Amino acid sequence: MIESYVDDILKKAHDAFFELSKQREDTINTALESLAELLDKNREKIKKINAIDVENAKKNNLKSALIDRLILNDKRIGGIIDAIEVVKKLKCPVGEVIEGWRLENGLSIEKVRVPIGTIGIIYESRPNVTIDAAILTLKSLNSAVLKGGSEAINSNRFLSELLKEALKQNNLNPDTIGFLDTTDRTAVNIMLKSDKYIDAIVPRGGEGLVKFVSQNATMPVIKHDKGLCHTYIDKDTDIKKALDIAFNAKVQRPGVCNATETLLVHRAIAEKFLKAFKPLMDKAEVELRGCKKTREIIDVKEAKEEDWQTEYLDLILSIKVVETTDEAIEHINKYGSKHSEAIVTENYSTAERFLNEVDASCVYVNASTRFTDGGVFGFGAEIGISTNKLHARGPVGLKELTTYKYKIRGDGQIRQ
Amino acid sequence: MIESYVDDILKKAHDAFFELSKQREDTINTALESLAELLDKNREKIKKINAIDVENAKKNNLKSALIDRLILNDKRIGGIIDAIEVVKKLKCPVGEVIEGWRLENGLSIEKVRVPIGTIGIIYESRPNVTIDAAILTLKSLNSAVLKGGSEAINSNRFLSELLKEALKQNNLNPDTIGFLDTTDRTAVNIMLKSDKYIDAIVPRGGEGLVKFVSQNATMPVIKHDKGLCHTYIDKDTDIKKALDIAFNAKVQRPGVCNATETLLVHRAIAEKFLKAFKPLMDKAEVELRGCKKTREIIDVKEAKEEDWQTEYLDLILSIKVVETTDEAIEHINKYGSKHSEAIVTENYSTAERFLNEVDASCVYVNASTRFTDGGVFGFGAEIGISTNKLHARGPVGLKELTTYKYKIRGDGQIRQ
Repeated sequence: MIESYVDDILKKAHDAFFELSKQREDTINTALESLAELLDKNREKIKKINAIDVENAKKNNLKSALIDRLILNDKRIGGIIDAIEVVKKLKCPVGEVIEGWRLENGLSIEKVRVPIGTIGIIYESRPNVTIDAAILTLKSLNSAVLKGGSEAINSNRFLSELLKEALKQNNLNPDTIGFLDTTDRTAVNIMLKSDKYIDAIVPRGGEGLVKFVSQNATMPVIKHDKGLCHTYIDKDTDIKKALDIAFNAKVQRPGVCNATETLLVHRAIAEKFLKAFKPLMDKAEVELRGCKKTREIIDVKEAKEEDWQTEYLDLILSIKVVETTDEAIEHINKYGSKHSEAIVTENYSTAERFLNEVDASCVYVNASTRFTDGGVFGFGAEIGISTNKLHARGPVGLKELTTYKYKIRGDGQIRQ
Repeated sequence: MIESYVDDILKKAHDAFFELSKQREDTINTALESLAELLDKNREKIKKINAIDVENAKKNNLKSALIDRLILNDKRIGGIIDAIEVVKKLKCPVGEVIEGWRLENGLSIEKVRVPIGTIGIIYESRPNVTIDAAILTLKSLNSAVLKGGSEAINSNRFLSELLKEALKQNNLNPDTIGFLDTTDRTAVNIMLKSDKYIDAIVPRGGEGLVKFVSQNATMPVIKHDKGLCHTYIDKDTDIKKALDIAFNAKVQRPGVCNATETLLVHRAIAEKFLKAFKPLMDKAEVELRGCKKTREIIDVKEAKEEDWQTEYLDLILSIKVVETTDEAIEHINKYGSKHSEAIVTENYSTAERFLNEVDASCVYVNASTRFTDGGVFGFGAEIGISTNKLHARGPVGLKELTTYKYKIRGDGQIRQ
């Protein structure tokens, strides 16, 4: 029975959390070292098992991009081992005293960072997520239950076995990182209703998966939803900066969530800016789609309503000329996905207004939206970039995989 | 049509948030003053309108406890006005720089506290929540939509009118605090699915309401669920402290969420403690229900499995004798509602283990569980005590009604 199978793994991971939360960071670090060694020693076996998944994917006519994500070669295995080394060196955030104070009655209150508990991770295709997700949850003293995509089942199963071996070698409970060894999609539905065992769920995959998890989970979801980011070129701008930033935000890596999808340009600078910008875009083979006012200045395709709503993840950019900064902010707050938004301006008041009034996890002045990234921010590693407004916003690193509790120390205080 | 009616109010509150977030704290404070004045001036009218609700409740044979909660008399109206004064004096947490740092490339990153957005508040019976909830959301620069219980509809409607009048008097948009003037329960269902407009939802009411909201809301829920709190009397304890704390935790106000429902007593001290404790409980007319070992020491009713799962909110206490601190912690982590848990001990290592290993929002050493309260903690006011693990944990004050964004200032940085 799939129900009792899933239930058993969730319950064991939930129980293992209480053991894990007693562990010291150096035990976790040694387990991470063991894992890196096991991965290195088993390179050939990993590639052999992975080849089965890849072959099946080819037989099932999966798209080549999907097959590419499936592949574990020496470079990728090396990447996983490097990631373990990075996470090992990060400081575990658990135990940080966020704030503390004393009451008049002498009670001492400490607000202390603690792990969340058991984290469910549902992911697609890339088998490296099995290790990436596990090491981040382990390092933050959370237990986890992993459910990977069926196309990577053989690779994921073997990586999970190595994980459990590394835990065992260090006298840690192998159930700490549960693995749902099934391709039955019912398993996901059961997970999403098991708030009794799972404290938070992280979907890692396409828009469909994120939406399904958000709408059906009964526990909090830390979601990495789409990034529909804007760059706004204000009238009081340094044209060189504006061209550099807008170009970088679109072209440097168009397929990622923090790339800019829509450019907003103040009418007073539109002609000067757009005429200089178009040749750069043409050279970079970016397809431009403009509003009516844009098309009066440069010859581009027409942008339709759905363009303002689209995360292209491609070399396509929509452009809108706005009359005021208000109009730009309104457009962003209406169409943006609250991910990363930038203004290019030399005007102090306009910059401050943009920083304050744009509702997004990361708001930039005179810099590319492409900087939103746990690694860039100095978090060392990230499990995704949250578009939630509550709990974790922006890059989700180790700290965002924790919550807090109040520790209150007294010497006999009772309430009057 | 109820759908378009609710949708319209939600959308207006959502749009009003963006205007509100530009306001200064002193404008909000002046609006709070206006509201206090309006309430004071309209005391007679409030009581007259409230009398209609009370009369209807009597006609409909509502329970006397429920009718009591409905009543707005001079004392309660005075209490609401006092609460406004308290909230006015609190510091608005918006704008606090939680942390900040500079990257090697010169980008300056600030993690800044910002309002959440639009908060939905669904509550039962007590009409004072209309004002209490509104002033906390306003002071933290959030907009809100209120949906009160049908039994208080006339009182709530009039209080909402006074709220809107106070906003208008200060040139604030009256839609900032939306009020669903309907007794149609469909309105709640529509709210719970409107994550497009509502960023977080706070249910304030009984277990049924909280459960319904948690299971059906598509946005994050800040929930004040039940408080099944324990006090554990360790073997190395000062008997006088243990008696005082256990008595206070049960008796001082048994009907509230932070009262203790189950007492755990270490076997080594059980005889001495329980024999001294029982007469105190008898005198306070507390009904005791004990495990087998408890009943070998004192003559009490038998505690059944369901007793460990019950929040009595009454003068009833279940008692379990445990062999070890491990057994006490395991019992708490199994049956507790992660609200408030206390240990009474003089043993350093036992105290630290309890603080670390018990999974609850507030963990006490040598103090009564009754202290978990936004007012006591120094938050000034609270909208409830969260039993969530993510976002807000424990007392929910103004700070817990905020989230954060990253403000990133550059001078032309692009990503390499």
